[in-house]
Amino acid sequence: MSDKVAVTPATHTAPPARFSHGVRKGGVLQVAGQVGFLPAQEGRKPEPAGPGLREQTLQTLANVQAVLEEGGAGWEDAVMLRVYLTDTAHFAEFNALYDEFLAERVTVPPARTTVYVGLPAGLLVEIDALAVLG
Amino acid sequence: MSDKVAVTPATHTAPPARFSHGVRKGGVLQVAGQVGFLPAQEGRKPEPAGPGLREQTLQTLANVQAVLEEGGAGWEDAVMLRVYLTDTAHFAEFNALYDEFLAERVTVPPARTTVYVGLPAGLLVEIDALAVLG
Amino acid sequence: MSDKVAVTPATHTAPPARFSHGVRKGGVLQVAGQVGFLPAQEGRKPEPAGPGLREQTLQTLANVQAVLEEGGAGWEDAVMLRVYLTDTAHFAEFNALYDEFLAERVTVPPARTTVYVGLPAGLLVEIDALAVLG
Repeated sequence: MSDKVAVTPATHTAPPARFSHGVRKGGVLQVAGQVGFLPAQEGRKPEPAGPGLREQTLQTLANVQAVLEEGGAGWEDAVMLRVYLTDTAHFAEFNALYDEFLAERVTVPPARTTVYVGLPAGLLVEIDALAVLG
Repeated sequence: MSDKVAVTPATHTAPPARFSHGVRKGGVLQVAGQVGFLPAQEGRKPEPAGPGLREQTLQTLANVQAVLEEGGAGWEDAVMLRVYLTDTAHFAEFNALYDEFLAERVTVPPARTTVYVGLPAGLLVEIDALAVLG
Repeated sequence: MSDKVAVTPATHTAPPARFSHGVRKGGVLQVAGQVGFLPAQEGRKPEPAGPGLREQTLQTLANVQAVLEEGGAGWEDAVMLRVYLTDTAHFAEFNALYDEFLAERVTVPPARTTVYVGLPAGLLVEIDALAVLG
């Protein structure tokens, strides 16, 4: 019998398709790709924090953290972050924000891969995470 | 001693390089990036289902499922799907097909990340999956 | 208490942000996105092997291997490689180099996903890896 559970922070907007914001199974917690959407408001469409990379990045990292925590984990359990940016010119600013956010939150930083892809209009960054628990 | 095994559905075309369609090791089943190739036919080159996004998407999902099942798993074991599309304009149609496909196949949907990348000519979608067994 | 450890080969250049080249936790070893940087030299900026795809690919694979080995693993433990190229025209040459590199190094090849993305100027390939130990 499976011990798989969906992890859904109360603040999160509904996914646009049949997927979970997070899934925990066995010793693994997988966080789906998070973007910089502000906390869900009933009757309103998802809207990213703005106006710039700073706000979206910090909101995206907060959204990843919310899924980790809802799943009973934290940054210390995260082994991998996948960072999707849309513009190589954002790398330095993103890294500064990322370092600032994680500085006091983790002692052994996760591994990371950063690549440049297309994202839906208005989104500048997407991040997913793999955590190993216990 | 390692318990690593390659997972290779009989219907699948040979990979274009030294990689496995699926690998099972420990409690993990990793499905390689699947595209919408029709079942292999001896002496013929791999050919995607067509002509459109609908056929490729459903074939790609079927190919992912074939690897999951060959590896002794199913959608209920899948914790993560990575979806690679080539055009943001395909998002809504892809999601409708994806939801239709998974509707009766899974109760706890996997997490998912969707990004827009380049793929070889003729391919519109690629999907890989991580499953945790037991 | 967490058994998470950062894995940092002595030859590797310092990451440009707060992430680890590799992380081991539980039975998982995650290798961060590796590029074709030559071994670190004190006081010099990271520099990719050159001038072409061949040198970068072989150096990238060597860098992945260095993290696997520093983490107590090897290619036989690798269940997944994610390959990021920048040009679909590189696929055939990349695969030839990849096959040549892995031919005598692994009996059960990992799964693999290959997509085409943007990378920082000068970089033609990036690869990360997931290994399961024990």
